[in-house]
Amino acid sequence: MTNLPELPSVMVDDAVRAALQEDLGRAGDITTLATIPANATARVVIASRETGVVSGMPLARSAFAAISPNISFETEIDDGGRVEPGSAVARIEGRARDVLSAERVALNYLGHMSGIATATAQFADKIAHTQAKVVCTRKTTPGLRAFEKYAVRCGGGANHRFGLDDAILIKDNHIAVVGSVVSTIEAARKYIGHLVKIEIEVDTLDQLAEALTAKPDVVLLDNMDAATLKEAVAMVTKINPATKTEASGGIKLDTIAKKAEAGVDYISTGWITHSSPVLDLGLDTIIE
Amino acid sequence: MTNLPELPSVMVDDAVRAALQEDLGRAGDITTLATIPANATARVVIASRETGVVSGMPLARSAFAAISPNISFETEIDDGGRVEPGSAVARIEGRARDVLSAERVALNYLGHMSGIATATAQFADKIAHTQAKVVCTRKTTPGLRAFEKYAVRCGGGANHRFGLDDAILIKDNHIAVVGSVVSTIEAARKYIGHLVKIEIEVDTLDQLAEALTAKPDVVLLDNMDAATLKEAVAMVTKINPATKTEASGGIKLDTIAKKAEAGVDYISTGWITHSSPVLDLGLDTIIE
Amino acid sequence: MTNLPELPSVMVDDAVRAALQEDLGRAGDITTLATIPANATARVVIASRETGVVSGMPLARSAFAAISPNISFETEIDDGGRVEPGSAVARIEGRARDVLSAERVALNYLGHMSGIATATAQFADKIAHTQAKVVCTRKTTPGLRAFEKYAVRCGGGANHRFGLDDAILIKDNHIAVVGSVVSTIEAARKYIGHLVKIEIEVDTLDQLAEALTAKPDVVLLDNMDAATLKEAVAMVTKINPATKTEASGGIKLDTIAKKAEAGVDYISTGWITHSSPVLDLGLDTIIE
Amino acid sequence: MTNLPELPSVMVDDAVRAALQEDLGRAGDITTLATIPANATARVVIASRETGVVSGMPLARSAFAAISPNISFETEIDDGGRVEPGSAVARIEGRARDVLSAERVALNYLGHMSGIATATAQFADKIAHTQAKVVCTRKTTPGLRAFEKYAVRCGGGANHRFGLDDAILIKDNHIAVVGSVVSTIEAARKYIGHLVKIEIEVDTLDQLAEALTAKPDVVLLDNMDAATLKEAVAMVTKINPATKTEASGGIKLDTIAKKAEAGVDYISTGWITHSSPVLDLGLDTIIE
Amino acid sequence: MTNLPELPSVMVDDAVRAALQEDLGRAGDITTLATIPANATARVVIASRETGVVSGMPLARSAFAAISPNISFETEIDDGGRVEPGSAVARIEGRARDVLSAERVALNYLGHMSGIATATAQFADKIAHTQAKVVCTRKTTPGLRAFEKYAVRCGGGANHRFGLDDAILIKDNHIAVVGSVVSTIEAARKYIGHLVKIEIEVDTLDQLAEALTAKPDVVLLDNMDAATLKEAVAMVTKINPATKTEASGGIKLDTIAKKAEAGVDYISTGWITHSSPVLDLGLDTIIE
Amino acid sequence: MTNLPELPSVMVDDAVRAALQEDLGRAGDITTLATIPANATARVVIASRETGVVSGMPLARSAFAAISPNISFETEIDDGGRVEPGSAVARIEGRARDVLSAERVALNYLGHMSGIATATAQFADKIAHTQAKVVCTRKTTPGLRAFEKYAVRCGGGANHRFGLDDAILIKDNHIAVVGSVVSTIEAARKYIGHLVKIEIEVDTLDQLAEALTAKPDVVLLDNMDAATLKEAVAMVTKINPATKTEASGGIKLDTIAKKAEAGVDYISTGWITHSSPVLDLGLDTIIE
Repeated sequence: MTNLPELPSVMVDDAVRAALQEDLGRAGDITTLATIPANATARVVIASRETGVVSGMPLARSAFAAISPNISFETEIDDGGRVEPGSAVARIEGRARDVLSAERVALNYLGHMSGIATATAQFADKIAHTQAKVVCTRKTTPGLRAFEKYAVRCGGGANHRFGLDDAILIKDNHIAVVGSVVSTIEAARKYIGHLVKIEIEVDTLDQLAEALTAKPDVVLLDNMDAATLKEAVAMVTKINPATKTEASGGIKLDTIAKKAEAGVDYISTGWITHSSPVLDLGLDTIIE
Repeated sequence: MTNLPELPSVMVDDAVRAALQEDLGRAGDITTLATIPANATARVVIASRETGVVSGMPLARSAFAAISPNISFETEIDDGGRVEPGSAVARIEGRARDVLSAERVALNYLGHMSGIATATAQFADKIAHTQAKVVCTRKTTPGLRAFEKYAVRCGGGANHRFGLDDAILIKDNHIAVVGSVVSTIEAARKYIGHLVKIEIEVDTLDQLAEALTAKPDVVLLDNMDAATLKEAVAMVTKINPATKTEASGGIKLDTIAKKAEAGVDYISTGWITHSSPVLDLGLDTIIE
Repeated sequence: MTNLPELPSVMVDDAVRAALQEDLGRAGDITTLATIPANATARVVIASRETGVVSGMPLARSAFAAISPNISFETEIDDGGRVEPGSAVARIEGRARDVLSAERVALNYLGHMSGIATATAQFADKIAHTQAKVVCTRKTTPGLRAFEKYAVRCGGGANHRFGLDDAILIKDNHIAVVGSVVSTIEAARKYIGHLVKIEIEVDTLDQLAEALTAKPDVVLLDNMDAATLKEAVAMVTKINPATKTEASGGIKLDTIAKKAEAGVDYISTGWITHSSPVLDLGLDTIIE
Repeated sequence: MTNLPELPSVMVDDAVRAALQEDLGRAGDITTLATIPANATARVVIASRETGVVSGMPLARSAFAAISPNISFETEIDDGGRVEPGSAVARIEGRARDVLSAERVALNYLGHMSGIATATAQFADKIAHTQAKVVCTRKTTPGLRAFEKYAVRCGGGANHRFGLDDAILIKDNHIAVVGSVVSTIEAARKYIGHLVKIEIEVDTLDQLAEALTAKPDVVLLDNMDAATLKEAVAMVTKINPATKTEASGGIKLDTIAKKAEAGVDYISTGWITHSSPVLDLGLDTIIE
Repeated sequence: MTNLPELPSVMVDDAVRAALQEDLGRAGDITTLATIPANATARVVIASRETGVVSGMPLARSAFAAISPNISFETEIDDGGRVEPGSAVARIEGRARDVLSAERVALNYLGHMSGIATATAQFADKIAHTQAKVVCTRKTTPGLRAFEKYAVRCGGGANHRFGLDDAILIKDNHIAVVGSVVSTIEAARKYIGHLVKIEIEVDTLDQLAEALTAKPDVVLLDNMDAATLKEAVAMVTKINPATKTEASGGIKLDTIAKKAEAGVDYISTGWITHSSPVLDLGLDTIIE
Repeated sequence: MTNLPELPSVMVDDAVRAALQEDLGRAGDITTLATIPANATARVVIASRETGVVSGMPLARSAFAAISPNISFETEIDDGGRVEPGSAVARIEGRARDVLSAERVALNYLGHMSGIATATAQFADKIAHTQAKVVCTRKTTPGLRAFEKYAVRCGGGANHRFGLDDAILIKDNHIAVVGSVVSTIEAARKYIGHLVKIEIEVDTLDQLAEALTAKPDVVLLDNMDAATLKEAVAMVTKINPATKTEASGGIKLDTIAKKAEAGVDYISTGWITHSSPVLDLGLDTIIE
């Protein structure tokens, strides 16, 4: 099995602290301060209300730790694990004020990222019988790209480029300015370092045929129907089999299988990061 | 008509700059640098592919301005405006490299916030025949609360509290520790300043009856069906009509009207901020 | 008794680190590095030279902790506690260099915040025989609002709004533009969410009478003498007793009692945050 | 005449933006947004209600500029200028919403810094007939040291060291650990670079005599009465006239002249930065 | 010719502002404030004292602009341009205080980055007769990686990966833990997305032979002499010609040609970023 | 012996975290995550490959600690210590992924700062037989001034001013505007506080003679040959022996002794901070 990624605390803690400050504002958690005695303790469990895949546990842990080093946080299900309604994800114990003040930020991260992981897994499950893999895009929530791309991995997807700087993706707008598919790829190849890959978006089989002569690492087959995708894959196999194929454009849960069965290597969808609903997770007080 | 909120640049620019830096990474927009001549210009239009409500124009404008002060950005539809498929939202002109480098961040903000505004408007439309208003929650994306709450306003919704610090919201967990609804409200009232309101969550009519004796500003009627909500509203009207009523819990597009018709003042839903899909907006190059 | 607020470390540590960096500059504490052996230890006590109320202990503690995790810091008097000349507030032990390098930042916070708490308590003591409470304003030191408002609480005062965003306060300038007290309040009520209160400033009894017809949550009776305040309170009681009354304008230690005795609910003063002198606290080395 | 210092925008703008964000919070200036039409304009004047010295104009200007580049801000009295009740300090014109949203931050800086400048000038006036100069200390408000030290300059005072790192100041605690005044000075001299001065605090004439043998640049004569200060000055003149003398300890407006007349070069006081009241400045709408 | 990279202001300005703040400290440019009249103007030229390649003009321009928008800055030689002793690089005109306060930060960036560009060009010149290209490493100055890698491009070099996250580079330490070259490459391939390349470091021809069976994108031939490099290149050509070859290890100006002539595609050196001396540039006042 | 400076963690940790984030980017250490099992441990040693002086251990320690609190880091040679090829500087043990992810940042700081310390020591060794000391300049790498100046101290050098704000250094450009050496010094003396020193740059003996009449604390003898320096020193001794002498301008390892033997007190060189090569340090895995 492939390793899951990790989010070291140095990539997590600043964001979590900022999120807590956003929620605490200038006066702090006034409801808790007003109503909960300073010395009351709480034992709570974070549980799922739905079927899905967990992602975001390092952020949830960091949220409680940032409020108080004296909160204990025990993980029951690691990132990438599947949950059912009722599954306990983590057990938390500490001063009641501290636990309640960190709750919402922890759940907001966990719900959002688990929602992405869950959506990714749903897409991945639909194409498990093919060789295709689900990949994400740069259509992410500003400020959360690293976490959202990590969540895609937790859900069994793979990552597209993380920004404008780590791979070349030539789109129609670029070709429009330069005027020729081949010379655009060649310009890119001259510019980049030797550890950067080149992908080019093509909308037609004619464009594809032209692009393949310049041997891109990946071709993005945009908005093609299943039949055209099949022809495209055949063309790639014939002309430059080292080139990988990626299908994109309006990928939906009920259409992805057809596209995958056309033989492409990757299917990319912005939906999993920009439009997936949260996974419903809640915090329950344990009463003894 | 009620005024729409504004997002002054001092609330916007730091976030937008950080989002651009997240996308540009350490090497910048290598595709554009490699393929687009430095002096090429571009005229583009941001257009909607869907019916919806726009939100996020100050952030989109800020994204292009942060890349270059020489990009012109003309708003066609202001935040809060309705769009149809094909509606032009903004016209942008400048150096092609600059326009293309800012595109994704601008669209990521615009799509996300317009998605929230659109979802809010859909809910609001369903209950337009009642006195109830749609309100949001603290279930927002970490780091984006101010923008997401602003988007709710653009969609015709109203805002719940912005953080833990600007209003009291007593939940079941708080009552569980203190033991009594009334004494919890009284503890809150003693703690807060004179410009802070108190809301309390109740799950049953018995709890509601008890809570009303302490005259909270708002009662949150959680997970009640339409019939129970109606009884609750009647009880409030009878015992303490100054108290406002808010319904919450699993609010869906097809159930909200029933709940609103029960006579509550507000219906709150986390869905509009944490699970609404983006509004599909794209950037089209104008070819002359 | 009402609970005191808390300042969680996530609200404190960044400010304290920045203050230490401001003081250490680019070369650090050169006097200490030059003259104190690296292994010398120090036992010191922070003691008050004056009568007053303590505020700022979490920041003082954080200053020493940020310099070294090996400094022990024992609180003798918690925030909100009264001190006399000679009262020990905290006992600190650690490497001498570390203790001396953190001293000034710790004392600067402690002196400033305790000064505010002490001034607040002096005002509060003057009106303890009335129902009125001392409240603060937005006239705070830039960057320190959360801490200064917390210090007001430590001194027994209550908090006015924390910013422009958590309550409506309609002032003369707003009315001047809109033209009518009543329609200004109505515009505000339409704009805000259901957890936001509305206060309006009035300068005359005529304005007050008009304002009360729109049922604001609070009226700010600005610059009225005691006799007029009494009339104002009577008018409120008669027309809309749910409205709270707040007196403001040139509140001094020797005039506050008169104003409070007029029957207002709150008396607000900028002086306690913007002009109160520090409480004189010092750090004494314990020699054995 | 000596030049006044300047505060370049790169030293000012980040602090001002943070102060505006602190005040605007997450929802912005809701009163203004609710009640002031978007296109209403305002012409206002910042005027003093008191006699004093102005400081902080670059920060006030920056506050309005950060809210909108379209606000005009005309300085009537520059930093360092004297004002009387009614003196106009600046004239501002722009969109009413923008002007009102920036007002409080601008006035908070201006009142605080002008308060320090005014207090400094009051001390300086008392000793204008002597050769002594008023100087500040490190007892400043955390985060505001550069601005407060600048304000001292505006009021006619001189600056002591800006942090722990730009000069040596050996205090009793340092001597206590090392054991000898002379060897402490020698340790300091060995440690520092050739552009760093050495000051040592002495409490008695005996300590002073010992210290002078090591030729410090400045001696801090702490808590000495006027007669002892006179003896101290005589001793310095005799033993090492290149050493400057500074008096400190409980300096008050009514005692400073006596101490200055003893012949010291500098008199330092924490009061001007940590305890001076604000200068009362207000914003008046110009009605035509 | 290949395009040069660009550094958009959003990637530059924060660093430049921080550098100015580092230099201005808490009191600003006291020499200039003390000695230069506020209204004096200056016309200066930044000129090279040496032969070399310029890099860093956007940062120099940003430094002057951050001090004052009223400084004019005219570029004479763009980044990537060659200079001789005496070559004017930029002409600057503005208030004398502003020009002098920004000078050092501008020159520190320009000297450092031009030093890297110059060193890179020197290496590149030595191997211009071969097909090999000079590439950099991750041995950069903390905080300056984007700028230093940009400078390498200005000097005619190409970029290796920008961080730990944009390409796989398997080193001896990784192989040591996993135990086999082939299975390490396979583990990497399973982990990464489809736009990430894989490079593996090999120290011997045996390791190379083994590595090539797993078809890495690049092999890093570490510390091999010219003869061995030649054999390695031959082996790659024979077994997997799609794999690129990179030589590394103690690359010096007088040895690089030999290694390049062995036929490798890339030669990487940390020296150009971590040890190249500055290019000597100075600011001369123009006296008329 | 003189004490070495210290770098408290509050001056170090933010920079180190930023450097780690720069290296980890948005996807983290993908090579390590892909190839190293999560539970593998590593024992490594940081060893020198060269003769030199160590500097930067607090930053190296901080880098490993920021990645994981569970890494042990044992210092073998403290900052300021001399190393030979093979000398172990630190021993590190922890999870293999954590150790490898922090390695490059730790080594980048350590190599850069030890390079400066080593270069400083080489210069200092050349003039150990004279009374002169090596001092640095403001020609440092932007963002790293505090660390680079600290490294100069580790190498046995002394520090010149840390910024524009902690000492007066009048250069030719300042004199050019004011017109007279003496009146420039007098303007400076009037401006500054009593803990700030004044240095003036002179290029000729005539200028020196004029400058000495105004009794500056230090004269900077720029670009004088050894014979002229000797005359300059004699002139200072005769006219104002309290003034210190500093030589600057094109100081090289093979020329510094001559200049020092001329009798100057300080020799300043930008080379040690802006052009010294790194000290070659590496991380070796310990295999048992």
